[in-house]
Amino acid sequence: MDDQLRIFSGDSNSPLAREICDCLDITLSRLTIARFSNDNLFVKIRDNVRERDVFVVQSFTEPVSDNIMTLLITLDALRSASARRITAVIPYFSYARSDKKDAPRISITARLIADLLQTAGANRVLTMDLHADQVHGFFNIPVDHLSAIPTIADHFQAHYDLSRLIAVATDAGGAKRAGKFAERLNIPLAIIDKRRVSDARVEQGHVVGDVENREAVIFEDEISTGGTLIATENSLKRAGVRKIHAGAVHPVLCGSATQDLQASDIESLVVTNTVRMPEEKRLAKITVLTVAPLLAEAIRRINSGESVGALFR
Amino acid sequence: MDDQLRIFSGDSNSPLAREICDCLDITLSRLTIARFSNDNLFVKIRDNVRERDVFVVQSFTEPVSDNIMTLLITLDALRSASARRITAVIPYFSYARSDKKDAPRISITARLIADLLQTAGANRVLTMDLHADQVHGFFNIPVDHLSAIPTIADHFQAHYDLSRLIAVATDAGGAKRAGKFAERLNIPLAIIDKRRVSDARVEQGHVVGDVENREAVIFEDEISTGGTLIATENSLKRAGVRKIHAGAVHPVLCGSATQDLQASDIESLVVTNTVRMPEEKRLAKITVLTVAPLLAEAIRRINSGESVGALFR
Amino acid sequence: MDDQLRIFSGDSNSPLAREICDCLDITLSRLTIARFSNDNLFVKIRDNVRERDVFVVQSFTEPVSDNIMTLLITLDALRSASARRITAVIPYFSYARSDKKDAPRISITARLIADLLQTAGANRVLTMDLHADQVHGFFNIPVDHLSAIPTIADHFQAHYDLSRLIAVATDAGGAKRAGKFAERLNIPLAIIDKRRVSDARVEQGHVVGDVENREAVIFEDEISTGGTLIATENSLKRAGVRKIHAGAVHPVLCGSATQDLQASDIESLVVTNTVRMPEEKRLAKITVLTVAPLLAEAIRRINSGESVGALFR
Amino acid sequence: MDDQLRIFSGDSNSPLAREICDCLDITLSRLTIARFSNDNLFVKIRDNVRERDVFVVQSFTEPVSDNIMTLLITLDALRSASARRITAVIPYFSYARSDKKDAPRISITARLIADLLQTAGANRVLTMDLHADQVHGFFNIPVDHLSAIPTIADHFQAHYDLSRLIAVATDAGGAKRAGKFAERLNIPLAIIDKRRVSDARVEQGHVVGDVENREAVIFEDEISTGGTLIATENSLKRAGVRKIHAGAVHPVLCGSATQDLQASDIESLVVTNTVRMPEEKRLAKITVLTVAPLLAEAIRRINSGESVGALFR
Amino acid sequence: MDDQLRIFSGDSNSPLAREICDCLDITLSRLTIARFSNDNLFVKIRDNVRERDVFVVQSFTEPVSDNIMTLLITLDALRSASARRITAVIPYFSYARSDKKDAPRISITARLIADLLQTAGANRVLTMDLHADQVHGFFNIPVDHLSAIPTIADHFQAHYDLSRLIAVATDAGGAKRAGKFAERLNIPLAIIDKRRVSDARVEQGHVVGDVENREAVIFEDEISTGGTLIATENSLKRAGVRKIHAGAVHPVLCGSATQDLQASDIESLVVTNTVRMPEEKRLAKITVLTVAPLLAEAIRRINSGESVGALFR
Amino acid sequence: MDDQLRIFSGDSNSPLAREICDCLDITLSRLTIARFSNDNLFVKIRDNVRERDVFVVQSFTEPVSDNIMTLLITLDALRSASARRITAVIPYFSYARSDKKDAPRISITARLIADLLQTAGANRVLTMDLHADQVHGFFNIPVDHLSAIPTIADHFQAHYDLSRLIAVATDAGGAKRAGKFAERLNIPLAIIDKRRVSDARVEQGHVVGDVENREAVIFEDEISTGGTLIATENSLKRAGVRKIHAGAVHPVLCGSATQDLQASDIESLVVTNTVRMPEEKRLAKITVLTVAPLLAEAIRRINSGESVGALFR
Repeated sequence: MDDQLRIFSGDSNSPLAREICDCLDITLSRLTIARFSNDNLFVKIRDNVRERDVFVVQSFTEPVSDNIMTLLITLDALRSASARRITAVIPYFSYARSDKKDAPRISITARLIADLLQTAGANRVLTMDLHADQVHGFFNIPVDHLSAIPTIADHFQAHYDLSRLIAVATDAGGAKRAGKFAERLNIPLAIIDKRRVSDARVEQGHVVGDVENREAVIFEDEISTGGTLIATENSLKRAGVRKIHAGAVHPVLCGSATQDLQASDIESLVVTNTVRMPEEKRLAKITVLTVAPLLAEAIRRINSGESVGALFR
Repeated sequence: MDDQLRIFSGDSNSPLAREICDCLDITLSRLTIARFSNDNLFVKIRDNVRERDVFVVQSFTEPVSDNIMTLLITLDALRSASARRITAVIPYFSYARSDKKDAPRISITARLIADLLQTAGANRVLTMDLHADQVHGFFNIPVDHLSAIPTIADHFQAHYDLSRLIAVATDAGGAKRAGKFAERLNIPLAIIDKRRVSDARVEQGHVVGDVENREAVIFEDEISTGGTLIATENSLKRAGVRKIHAGAVHPVLCGSATQDLQASDIESLVVTNTVRMPEEKRLAKITVLTVAPLLAEAIRRINSGESVGALFR
Repeated sequence: MDDQLRIFSGDSNSPLAREICDCLDITLSRLTIARFSNDNLFVKIRDNVRERDVFVVQSFTEPVSDNIMTLLITLDALRSASARRITAVIPYFSYARSDKKDAPRISITARLIADLLQTAGANRVLTMDLHADQVHGFFNIPVDHLSAIPTIADHFQAHYDLSRLIAVATDAGGAKRAGKFAERLNIPLAIIDKRRVSDARVEQGHVVGDVENREAVIFEDEISTGGTLIATENSLKRAGVRKIHAGAVHPVLCGSATQDLQASDIESLVVTNTVRMPEEKRLAKITVLTVAPLLAEAIRRINSGESVGALFR
Repeated sequence: MDDQLRIFSGDSNSPLAREICDCLDITLSRLTIARFSNDNLFVKIRDNVRERDVFVVQSFTEPVSDNIMTLLITLDALRSASARRITAVIPYFSYARSDKKDAPRISITARLIADLLQTAGANRVLTMDLHADQVHGFFNIPVDHLSAIPTIADHFQAHYDLSRLIAVATDAGGAKRAGKFAERLNIPLAIIDKRRVSDARVEQGHVVGDVENREAVIFEDEISTGGTLIATENSLKRAGVRKIHAGAVHPVLCGSATQDLQASDIESLVVTNTVRMPEEKRLAKITVLTVAPLLAEAIRRINSGESVGALFR
Repeated sequence: MDDQLRIFSGDSNSPLAREICDCLDITLSRLTIARFSNDNLFVKIRDNVRERDVFVVQSFTEPVSDNIMTLLITLDALRSASARRITAVIPYFSYARSDKKDAPRISITARLIADLLQTAGANRVLTMDLHADQVHGFFNIPVDHLSAIPTIADHFQAHYDLSRLIAVATDAGGAKRAGKFAERLNIPLAIIDKRRVSDARVEQGHVVGDVENREAVIFEDEISTGGTLIATENSLKRAGVRKIHAGAVHPVLCGSATQDLQASDIESLVVTNTVRMPEEKRLAKITVLTVAPLLAEAIRRINSGESVGALFR
Repeated sequence: MDDQLRIFSGDSNSPLAREICDCLDITLSRLTIARFSNDNLFVKIRDNVRERDVFVVQSFTEPVSDNIMTLLITLDALRSASARRITAVIPYFSYARSDKKDAPRISITARLIADLLQTAGANRVLTMDLHADQVHGFFNIPVDHLSAIPTIADHFQAHYDLSRLIAVATDAGGAKRAGKFAERLNIPLAIIDKRRVSDARVEQGHVVGDVENREAVIFEDEISTGGTLIATENSLKRAGVRKIHAGAVHPVLCGSATQDLQASDIESLVVTNTVRMPEEKRLAKITVLTVAPLLAEAIRRINSGESVGALFR
C-alpha cells in the first residue's frame, strides 16, 4: 500500500471508515470536528497531508446538513493543506433522489451538491448505488460508482430458494434497479403500478406481473420511513404472494420504520452498512452486509492506478 | 411580441422553426451555413442581434456531428455578435441516451454536450422529452424541458377506444415514461422484461403484466431502427395481444425502419415533428403531431418572463 | 417600487423579512421549505420569478447548517427558475469569524461559504457587520456591506450621558470596531489585552486605557455565550469602572447567555434584530433596535440602481 | 520509454499514429469507435488509463465534424477514466483558418474549438503548422506547436538546385510563412498581390517580386481544392517563370484537386502525412514526407519532461 | 443618448476620452487615480454607476504597466460598484505584438492581458488596429475591433496624387496590413524582405516589388523607435524611390524617434490620436487624424444595440 | 534536495532570492527580463522547467506595477513552458493594504491581485506578514503565510532589557499585530487612538495604555514614509515615554523616510529584508534581519511535502 494514502472519516459513519482501513491495513488518519457556540462547525486536520492521496468517508445521513457542511469544510481544509488529490467517499449520497425537476421552480439538488463538492475541493468522488445512474453525470470530476446489488444478490443466492422468488419494484421508476437484481439471480420481475390521484394523493398500487403463490423480494435502493415497503407488502398480499422479503442498499430507517418493519409480515430484510445502523434498530430479521471490502478495494485501485472498472465484472 | 425576439434555424429542422415563427407571427431571422472545401463549417448571422433575445432551433438528427458543430458555431457567432441572451432550442437531443456510465471508460456524452453548449455560448436550453428526466441536471444553465406525452396521449384519447388499451414499455428502463402515458389515459401498464444473456446478446423479452386480449400501445421516447418496436410486437403477439399501436415522441426512423414498420402488424404509429420526416417516410399508418405551438408558447413565455411551468399543467 | 422586485425569506428570521417588506410596502413572496423523511431539505418557490430581481433573506443562525443548505437550495431553485438577478441577504453571516488560518490545516470557512453561495447561484450579497471588513473581499460577486454601528451609537447618543462613557473592546482584534463606535460618539476607547498562556488557556485580560470611575460600553459584533462579556465585566470592575453597558450587532445569545447576562452587573445591552430573538430571551435590560429600514432602503437602491454608498454617510 | 505512456488514435489518420508508435517502440493502445443507429457516436477506451500519460492522435480531416466529435468524446472518456494527463495530438488543425473576424457576426471558430477541447478534458495540445502562429494563443492550456517547414525545406535543399529557386507566397497573408521557407533555403521571395473586386470576387493576382526566368516554389500551409495553386501557377507563368514546384504541409486535396494538379504544369509537389492521403491521390509528382519522427520525439520529450523547444533549433 | 451611459478615462489619453464625450454630447464621468507612498495605485470612482453601461478609455502607452494596472483596478472597482456592463476601450493595445510563441518559454502576453482584463471585470472590449487580426480571438468576451486604416487611406486619397503611390510593408508579417491599405487606395504593393542572419542580427532588407521612380507610403500599425521606418527609407532610396511618406495608426514615437524622423527624408507621416502625442513631438511633417468620432459612434451603437459591423463598410 | 526544484527571481529583490538559493544549496535558475521600445515587458525563461517544481521570488516594491506585471508574465511563461507546479513567492505583498471597501466604489485590490496571480498561472503562493491575516482568504489557491514577528521579537529578546519595554500599536487596526509581538515577549501593550476629524484630516493620536517612564517599541507591518512612526513618536514623548524603538517587517522607506528617521529620537529600528534596502538607506540605527532561512525552509518543505505548519511553532 502506498504510504502516501490517507483516509479520514467524518462523523456520519466512522465504523465503516475504520473497517475500510482495516481491510487496507492502515490507520485511520485523524481530524477534529467541533462546533462553536454560535453553532458554526470547525474542522482541524491533525495529520500532515501535503502531497498525499487523501480520502474522506462521509455518508449523507441525519443530520444531513451538518454532515454535508462538515464534508465541505474538511475538503476545503485538505485542499488548503496541500493534499495532492482529494476523494470524497460518500457511501450514501442521499440527495441523489433530488435528481430531476418534476415540479416548477425546484432545485435539482443532487446536481447542486455535486457542484458544491467540487467548489470545496473534491477532485474525485467514490459513491455507491445512486438513486439513478444518471446522477453520475451531474459531476464534472471523475466518479467511481460502485454497486452493492451483487453483494445483496449473492446473499439471496446463498440463503434462499431461488426457484420460487420473484423480484418486485415498488414503482415504475424502480423497475430498472429491481430488474438488475432479478437478472443477476435469474428470477422473474414484477412492478407496482401506482397512479397519482391528485397532486397530494397517490392511489394504492396495482401489481403488474404474475406473483401469485410466489415468494417476493421487494428491492429498493434505500428504505427510509418504510412506508413504501409496507404499502407494497399489502399490495403483494392482496395479489396472493405467500412470503415477502426485502432487500435495499441504504438502510435509513427513520421515524417508526424499525417498529413498522418488525410488526409487518416481511420476513427478512437484507441491507448494507453504507448507513450506520445503531444497535436498537438491529432487528433479528435484518441482515447487514458490509461494503467495506468493496470500498477498500476501490480505494486501493484508485490510489495505485489500477482499473476500478474491473471490479464491476 | 417583444420586437427584440429573434429566432434562427440550423439545417436540421427548418420546417419546424418556420412553423414556430408562424405561431408567434414573426419572421425567421437569417443565417448562412456553408462548408469550406476542407469540410470546415462556416456560419454567418445575417441579421443584427445586439442586445436581442435570440433562439436557435436545431435538432440533433443525422448528420448529428455536423448539426451539433453548426449549433456550437452559431452560438459562438451570436455571443460574439453581442446577443443579450441565447437559447438553444433542441427539440430532439439525441445524445441524451448517453446518460450513464454502464461500462468502464466511456463518456457520459449527454453531459459533455451540455458542457459544450455552455462553452459555445448558450445561456439557456429549451428541449423536449429527454431520454431520462435526470439529463436536465447535466446542464449548469436554466433548461425548460417540455413533454409531448400529453399531446400524443390526447390524440389517443380522441381517436381510440381507451377501454381496451394497455400501455407497454419496451424495457424496465422505459417503465416510468410509459407509466406517465398510461396514467394520463388512465389505462393499465405492462412492461417487457429483457435479460442480458451475454455481453453481446439480450434474450427475447418476457411480457410482465396482463395483456391478453387487449389492444397494446407500445410507448417510447424515440424510434430509431424500429428493431425494439418489432421485437416488442412479437412478444406481445405471443402473449395474446389482439391489436398493436405505437406512440413515440422522436421519429428517427433510420435504416430500414420505415419498411419494417410498413411490413409489421403495428396498425398505427403516432409521433411528433421534433425530427423532420421526409415525404418518403410518411406512411399512411403514421400520424405526425406538431409540437410547434408548444415550443412557440414556451419561447413566448421565456421572452416575456411568464411562467413556463404553468405550461405543464 | 419596481414591480419586478421579489423578496423571499428562509426559515431563520422571517419576522425581519416581513418587516423589510412592510418598509417597502410589498408582499413577501412565497416559498415552501420541507424536509424529506431521509432528512434531505426541499425548497419550492411558489411565485413566478422569471426575469425578476429577487432577494432572499436568511441569517446564519442555529441550526446553521440547515439554514445555509436551505439558502443554497433556494438560490439554485431561483436560478433554474430564471430569476434575472438573485441577491442573498444575510443579516448575520456567522461564519465570517472563520476568516483566517491561525492554525495549520484548517479551513477559512468564510471564504468557502462565499464560494458556495456563488456556486449555488447568488449574483450579489447584502450583509451587515461582518466580523472583519476584509471578509468582504472573500466574495467574487458584488457585496453591499452595511453597518448597524451608527444605529446603535445613535441610540446611546439619545439615551445616555456621553460625557462619562468609554468604549471598551474585548480584545485587540476588536479595537478597530470599538474604535469606530467610540469615534462616532466622540468618547474615549479602552481595550482588554489578553494573553494566551497555552494553546488551550487564555489568561484573564488586562485593561489598557483609563477606565477608572467611568461608565463603560463594551462593544462587540456578536454576543454568543456571553462569556467574553462577563469576563470583560469582571476585568472592568477590577479596574474601577462604575457602571457597565454593552452594545452588539448580532444577539446570538446561546447556551446560558441570557441567564448569565441577567445575573451580571451589566446594566443594559443594546442589540439589533439581525438574529431573531425569541420572547423568552427578551430581558428588560435588552433593547432590540431594528435594522429593517436600513436593509429595506439598501434593497430599494440596489433594485433601482441608486447609490448604496450614500447610505453610509 | 515511460511505461505510463499510452497513445490512442482516432479514425482520421491511424497510419500516422501507428508510425509514431513504431518510432517510440510502443504498441498503439486500443479504443472502439462506433456509431449508434441514430447517428450518435460512441467511444470505448479498451486499455486501462488510470494515472497514465495519454496522447490521442486525430487530424481534423473530412469528415471534420465527426472527427472533432470523436476526439471530444474520447477526451471526455479518458478524463472520466482518470487519465493523469491527456494530450490532444492534432497534426492538422483545419479550423485554424477561422482565426479572425473579417466579417460581422461570424465565429472565430479556431478559438471555439480550442475552448471545446479544454472543456472536453484536454490538458495539452500538440499540433503542427497552424495557419497563423497566433492561433497558439487561442489555447488556455500548454501547446507544443511544431513545424514541418524545415522538413520540407531540407527536402528541397537535398533534391533541387537552390540557385535558381524563388519562394512564392500565394497572397500577402502567406508572406510570412513563405518567407520562413525562403530564409531557411536562403532563396529570394515573391508574393502574389490579390485585390478584392467585390465582396464575392477577387481579381487575378499580380506578382510582386522578380520571378522572371526563375524556378518558383509556391509555398502554402495547406492545399485544399488546389484552386489557389493553379491560379498562382497561371500568374507565375504570365510573369515569365520557367518551372514551377510547390510545397505544403497539409495535403487536403479535396474535390478535383488531384486531377487538376496532374493536369497542371506544376512539376512537383512536396507535402507531409499530417493528412492521410489515400493511394488513388498519390500522383508520381507528389512526394510525401513523414512527420512521425518529429511528433514521436515531441511526445517522448513531453512525457519525460525534456525541452521540446530544443526541437526547433 | 441613453442617460445610463457613463464614460471614464484612465490617465493615458484623457484628451481622446474628452473628445469622444464631446462627439456624444455627454460629460466625462469622474474618477480619482492616486498613488500611495508605497507606490500602490488607488482608484476611486466618483459617480454612481449602479446598473449603468460603463466605458473606460485607456491606451497601453508608457508607463504601460501603470496604465494596465490602473485599468484593471478601475474595472474591478466598477464591477464591485455594480455597473451593469463594463467595456474596456483600449485604442492602443500595445501588448498585441506579443501574440505568438516564436521562442521557447516565453509568454503570449497579449492572451494573458486579455485574460487579466476579463478577470478584473471587463464584459467587452473596444479596440483599434491590433497588431494581428487573430489577437481578437484571444478574448473570451465580445470585442469590437475597429480600424483607422480607412481614415488614413481617405486622407491620402484627399491630399496625394495616387497615380504614383505604392504602399510598402516593412516586412513579410506586415504585408497583409499594407495590402489592405493599398487595396483601399487601389495602388500597388511592395514589401521589404528581411532575413535573420543570426539570433541577434537581421540583415538589411531587400525590396520585393517594383518601386523605382515611384512615391512610397510605408504603412505600419505602430511607429515606436522609428528604427524600422528609417531602415525601410534607406532600402527604398537604394531601390530608386523618389519620395517617401509614411502612415501608421499608433504613434508611439519613443526614444529619439521624433528627432530621427525630423532628420530623415520621410516627407510626411500620417498617424492617429490613439496614442496621446505631446506638443513637443508634433513635427510639421506629422498629421494627426482623430479616431474620436469612430470610437464615439461605436460606443453609441454598443450602448443602443445597433450593429457595429455596419461601421466597417 | 529534489533536483526538480527551480527557483527564479524577478527584478525586485534578487539578493534575497540568491540568499534563499544559498540556504538550499542550489543555483538560481535564469530568466531574462527586457523592455521593448514601446515600454512593453518581455520575459524569457532560460532553463527548461518541464515537469519541474518552480518558485518565483518577487516582492511588490517600487516600481510596483512593473514588478507585478513582470511576475504575471513570468508565471504565464512558466505555465506555457509546462512547469509542473508554480509557486509565487511574494515576501512583501504591498497591495494587501487594499483589503476592504472603506469607501464606496473602490477596489479591494488585494483580492484582485490574488485573482490575477491565479489567472496568470500561479498554483500556490508563499508570502509573509500580510497587512491583515484575512487577506489569506482572498486566494483560491493554497497559501503559506509566514511571519517574521518571531524573528524580530527574538532579536529584541536577545538585545534589549524586556522589563521596561512596552509594545505600541500605531492605531486600533494594528492592535492585534502589536499584541502578538507583545505576547511573544511577554511585555505590556499600548495603542494610539486616532480620530477622523473630517474626511481629509485625522487628529493627533491619543495614547491608550500606561506608557509613562517606559521604553516603547512601536510595532508595524511596514514602514513607508515613516510619517506614522514620527507621529507616534511625538504622541509617546508627550505621554512621558523615555526611549523609543521600532520594529517592522517590511522596510519600504520611501520619500524622506530615511532622513526623517535619522533626525528623529527613535533610537533603533529593526526590520527584515523582504524589501531590498539600498546601501544609502542603511542607517546605523537600522538592523536588518534576514528572512531567507525561513523562506528557504518553507520552500524545501513545500517541495518535499513536509508540514509547513510545523514552522509556526
